[in-house]
Amino acid sequence: MGRLLSAVMVSLVLLTGGTAFGDAAPVSSATQECLDCHAIYHPGIVADWQKSRHAMTSPKTAMTVQGLQRRMSGSQVPDPLLENSVGCAECHTLRGGDHADTFAHNGYDIHVVVSPDDCATCHPVERAQYAQNIMALAEKNLSENTLYADLQRSILGTASVKPDQVHFVPANDLTRAEACYFCHGTRLRVTGTETRDTDAGELEFPVIAGWPNQGVGRVNLDGSRGACSACHTRHRFSIEMARKPYTCKACHVGPDVPAFKVYSASKHGNIFSSMQSGWDFNTVPWVIGEDIQAPTCATCHISLTVNTDGEVINPRTHQMSDRLGWRIFGLIYAHPQPKSPDTTPIRNKAGLPLPTDLDGSLAVDYLISADEAAARRTTMQRTCLACHDASWVNGHFERLDNTIVTSNQAVLTATGLITSVWEKGYAQGLAGGGSIFDEYIERCWSDVWLLYANNIRFASAMAGGGDYGVFEDGRYHLTKSILEMHAWQQTRDLIMKNP
Amino acid sequence: MGRLLSAVMVSLVLLTGGTAFGDAAPVSSATQECLDCHAIYHPGIVADWQKSRHAMTSPKTAMTVQGLQRRMSGSQVPDPLLENSVGCAECHTLRGGDHADTFAHNGYDIHVVVSPDDCATCHPVERAQYAQNIMALAEKNLSENTLYADLQRSILGTASVKPDQVHFVPANDLTRAEACYFCHGTRLRVTGTETRDTDAGELEFPVIAGWPNQGVGRVNLDGSRGACSACHTRHRFSIEMARKPYTCKACHVGPDVPAFKVYSASKHGNIFSSMQSGWDFNTVPWVIGEDIQAPTCATCHISLTVNTDGEVINPRTHQMSDRLGWRIFGLIYAHPQPKSPDTTPIRNKAGLPLPTDLDGSLAVDYLISADEAAARRTTMQRTCLACHDASWVNGHFERLDNTIVTSNQAVLTATGLITSVWEKGYAQGLAGGGSIFDEYIERCWSDVWLLYANNIRFASAMAGGGDYGVFEDGRYHLTKSILEMHAWQQTRDLIMKNP
Amino acid sequence: MGRLLSAVMVSLVLLTGGTAFGDAAPVSSATQECLDCHAIYHPGIVADWQKSRHAMTSPKTAMTVQGLQRRMSGSQVPDPLLENSVGCAECHTLRGGDHADTFAHNGYDIHVVVSPDDCATCHPVERAQYAQNIMALAEKNLSENTLYADLQRSILGTASVKPDQVHFVPANDLTRAEACYFCHGTRLRVTGTETRDTDAGELEFPVIAGWPNQGVGRVNLDGSRGACSACHTRHRFSIEMARKPYTCKACHVGPDVPAFKVYSASKHGNIFSSMQSGWDFNTVPWVIGEDIQAPTCATCHISLTVNTDGEVINPRTHQMSDRLGWRIFGLIYAHPQPKSPDTTPIRNKAGLPLPTDLDGSLAVDYLISADEAAARRTTMQRTCLACHDASWVNGHFERLDNTIVTSNQAVLTATGLITSVWEKGYAQGLAGGGSIFDEYIERCWSDVWLLYANNIRFASAMAGGGDYGVFEDGRYHLTKSILEMHAWQQTRDLIMKNP
Repeated sequence: MGRLLSAVMVSLVLLTGGTAFGDAAPVSSATQECLDCHAIYHPGIVADWQKSRHAMTSPKTAMTVQGLQRRMSGSQVPDPLLENSVGCAECHTLRGGDHADTFAHNGYDIHVVVSPDDCATCHPVERAQYAQNIMALAEKNLSENTLYADLQRSILGTASVKPDQVHFVPANDLTRAEACYFCHGTRLRVTGTETRDTDAGELEFPVIAGWPNQGVGRVNLDGSRGACSACHTRHRFSIEMARKPYTCKACHVGPDVPAFKVYSASKHGNIFSSMQSGWDFNTVPWVIGEDIQAPTCATCHISLTVNTDGEVINPRTHQMSDRLGWRIFGLIYAHPQPKSPDTTPIRNKAGLPLPTDLDGSLAVDYLISADEAAARRTTMQRTCLACHDASWVNGHFERLDNTIVTSNQAVLTATGLITSVWEKGYAQGLAGGGSIFDEYIERCWSDVWLLYANNIRFASAMAGGGDYGVFEDGRYHLTKSILEMHAWQQTRDLIMKNP
Repeated sequence: MGRLLSAVMVSLVLLTGGTAFGDAAPVSSATQECLDCHAIYHPGIVADWQKSRHAMTSPKTAMTVQGLQRRMSGSQVPDPLLENSVGCAECHTLRGGDHADTFAHNGYDIHVVVSPDDCATCHPVERAQYAQNIMALAEKNLSENTLYADLQRSILGTASVKPDQVHFVPANDLTRAEACYFCHGTRLRVTGTETRDTDAGELEFPVIAGWPNQGVGRVNLDGSRGACSACHTRHRFSIEMARKPYTCKACHVGPDVPAFKVYSASKHGNIFSSMQSGWDFNTVPWVIGEDIQAPTCATCHISLTVNTDGEVINPRTHQMSDRLGWRIFGLIYAHPQPKSPDTTPIRNKAGLPLPTDLDGSLAVDYLISADEAAARRTTMQRTCLACHDASWVNGHFERLDNTIVTSNQAVLTATGLITSVWEKGYAQGLAGGGSIFDEYIERCWSDVWLLYANNIRFASAMAGGGDYGVFEDGRYHLTKSILEMHAWQQTRDLIMKNP
Repeated sequence: MGRLLSAVMVSLVLLTGGTAFGDAAPVSSATQECLDCHAIYHPGIVADWQKSRHAMTSPKTAMTVQGLQRRMSGSQVPDPLLENSVGCAECHTLRGGDHADTFAHNGYDIHVVVSPDDCATCHPVERAQYAQNIMALAEKNLSENTLYADLQRSILGTASVKPDQVHFVPANDLTRAEACYFCHGTRLRVTGTETRDTDAGELEFPVIAGWPNQGVGRVNLDGSRGACSACHTRHRFSIEMARKPYTCKACHVGPDVPAFKVYSASKHGNIFSSMQSGWDFNTVPWVIGEDIQAPTCATCHISLTVNTDGEVINPRTHQMSDRLGWRIFGLIYAHPQPKSPDTTPIRNKAGLPLPTDLDGSLAVDYLISADEAAARRTTMQRTCLACHDASWVNGHFERLDNTIVTSNQAVLTATGLITSVWEKGYAQGLAGGGSIFDEYIERCWSDVWLLYANNIRFASAMAGGGDYGVFEDGRYHLTKSILEMHAWQQTRDLIMKNP
């Protein structure tokens, strides 16, 4: 009976530990050398990796899987990588000549920062898709947009009070790295080398500005953009984690992009939170109904999903906009998705680097067509229809379209108010060469389009629930902001005896 | 050993999948026809249902259970329903003649929207209790109250700026359906039929305005009010999910009714979040101490609970106010529960459809007596006393009573300020025929009674913790709002040279 | 096969119930008498205790464990306690003469409130460490600070509107007990006795003012300070619960000390939320990498952690500041940790009971030295380095140091504004003998240092993510508050025709 119970324990460990990928793949001698020291110095990441699929499977084994169960899209993996597990050395010595942070370390040329182009050795399809994802350009789209730079200056900058206004000096790199670029990704640069006194003696290491960072648009030391580890967290790199909404939350938590909060208030999030302990987050393909009974973020936006007969509902994509017709993150109005993930060339009619004009019209040349938007929505709806009939789905999207219109109207009203404030000289707008973000009344205006209108649209798009979209962070606050702008202007009118 | 491990696996599946309700009940031939197509078209809901107790048990089997273990309150189930599982056809063809959305579909007369009156076929006691729940009237109590309509207009409506004020046009039905009525419930109406090109060919379906909706007070197409699926989510309809606080969160997430946020900051929520993986959410009756070591929302407000000797602590109720003496959701002051779930007849002394006057006095004719409130509190306390001694419980409720008084005092102070603002003509109140919700200073006033006073009382009632009720969304913000109202009036006084 | 499955079930129960601490310890006859009644009257706490380690282990057995696995620090336990489980009577009759609430109950002298000095009988090291923890003095540090009392008055107090200002009467004890002192701890006092009619007949009990309370700095009826049950929740007192972040959340949920919100938005929190079901929260010592793959609050601040070779990473401490150089909770600026947990003697240069002056300079005599701060940071970094290399860790702390500087600068700017407001007479500051917390513009100022600067620093210290620290509750709002203060002053200047 003792042996019997032992067997039970083992089976339990295998079932619950998530490490049962068959016999472990052999560890390369190079990786074994890494492990010999780092298991002591950095036990957390070593143990994390040991629980990973990378530790248990060789590329060769992974390539034997055919059809929808296949997890590795590559089929031309260099020979030296084929038969061993995907360990320390396999990734951190890959394409050494391309990485500016490559340095000699115990006889190996290793680099600190593994990039999407390294991952592409085995996962080329996902990497190519991700390059078309606007997230891959998140650093560039922010850092090269002069208008966003001005907004950033007034949010992150150092404030000092001048007689007539508050003056903001742009924030330094350290602040930027833990603020906007924490999610958007930093631009990494090797600035030199340093010698560190380690448990293994004095060793030399590269010094990397902008490090650490796992932002989605990180500019890597091989020139590539992105960080797979933003979602497939080091060093487990698990599909389970990437499929759970907590991962998206790390960057989508605030009222500007409130995806997690809306999800967790929605019926989908309710089902996930209540029932997830019985779900399977590791299967490929992901069987809707059998593995999960409600979608997570990944289900709708990324994952390869099938029905219980194994028929594909939606193919996997790492270009998240594949299933999105509209960009409900207003800049400053909700608008069709941009054609290109590189949004830096976009100019509105007024010449500003924005996809919409202050009057609400669209920079149509840079945005996808109505047909393309409709096609993307149809793709999304294939997932909806796995659980809901057409009348449900149509009813839902009819409300979303209505909310895009009405929330844009609210932004137009608020923009009319701020325009009036500028015209009356109560704040300095673009006309006077000023910033449109650095005065209090302007911040009330940005609350409307950057926080509340976005909340309302996210809540609508994700069926996030009435209480969330009204009182938690939505319509109640949007209309209050408009009322505040009006009252503020009225006070100035009274003081100035403006009619 | 292989067979042994298989047995282990099976036992694990049974234990973890939650589907071990004994041998599955037979599927009726009608339901089998539904499943033949819908398992392909809508695999999510089919698989969800297959994991449900409805799929595993026939009413006849459920009726063999006696005493507190009984889950089905009905004892007169029509013969055709008795022996099969409770499947698609059983619910969606029930009482066909009563449903305005009944349509011919593959030889069956089915209706889209299953109503509480359908559920009452097997669950008459719960349905009758729920009809006495104020939630069942949530649509009516909102839509037929002129004052709430005005508040709604200024929150959801389309704003436009007029010379002297912001003007709001009432929101359209689509906006209402995803805002207030998302939780309160929409009024469903069949507006016609449409032909849709489906995978099974062209089929005709009813068109239902207000659909989809799972709001607690939904007006159904058979005239009934409510949606059991609001908490017992389709198509698992599980008691487990209804007992978890995430379900209540879907509608109780914002600062007006912050039940979930307060719970999750409380010690009860702390214990639930930390230890729930070892709890049993499926047992009937629910054994306090054995199945759970801290209450969820359902434990205190709804569930049949017993002690470890099987003695009843509290009987099941679906009239949630059964255990509540006070309504801490202020309108505009906290007040004893209304006598009837239909609050539309309530008028305060000023003739407004509110349970309290602006001076804080109660519309006593419409509210339960002090004796009844005390009796309901005693019922609630039976649950408290299962884990806490009388001195603990008395100490807790003494604080709640104090907080009801002091938070009402704060609302009175804020109401004094807004009254002064109206009298001075800085905003247009009721006296001038205006709205009392559509100006900025009025919104500061509603912040006090609709958001912060409610937060403070919820935090008090649920022992939600000091930091929550002070800095997260409570007293710090309530007093700041009062200070803002005062400063705003002072500014106008200075401008107007009012003494 | 039946017996086999039974064995499986048993093993599952043992594995999942967390109660497999070997053979249960015998229950003392005194405790058995308690259980005979209280299992019926208070089944929740009895069952909770029965699942506890206290119920399964005697001190004698616990003392046989040697080395890092040892959970009980004491080695001189009184004989009568040695051989039985740690049950009701063991704790509630301990040191009876020292407790003011000791009363005769069924032949025993029991006390209601078990104190840290009771727990010290078996856990003297943890108790002594905790006494050095600033949390142990939380009640005193708040109640005996005149400036904090004034802040408290304007947050919790009863507001009434006077011609020129809002007047606050200090809140009563009941309000305080559920507000600030809910977390800080109440001062318990026996005010008399009362006879209660119980199921066991008429019994006499002490009446305890300030009860219930589990605040970290509770003043107990034996004169000791603290409540072990604040984190090791009654009556399981489990290490598992204390190690989960939900426990810290109960007091660290608001924007003043937003530890939980920042954690749950961080990558650490993301990993915890996604993967915790496979983690072990009960092992001592806690093996980083094996038991957990990301830290919880306890991992970094309290727990005894080892690497997979069993080498100590950090020893256990219940003096939470052991690993903290800086106090990022600004009063009103971030500053090095105070030397003593008793902060009541601290005076800044202006004589105010604050660790910093309004101009940002430090009350250095009362704060730890730069060397000590550096040493504590080094201790903390040992945990970081278990998963991150030195360049990662250094990069992280370089950003934190920068953020301490820049957030302090922002507070200085805001303080310059409020000083100007005071000088111009738009609000009454200290100079005029007034409060610096009871006017609207002063509350805008406290938003800056008490809410937003703290949020920004917590987000920085815990790598809480860019979106959290910018838009959720951080820099966006901090700069908006500064802009509001400036605009408010400007409005008054315009009215007063001040240049």
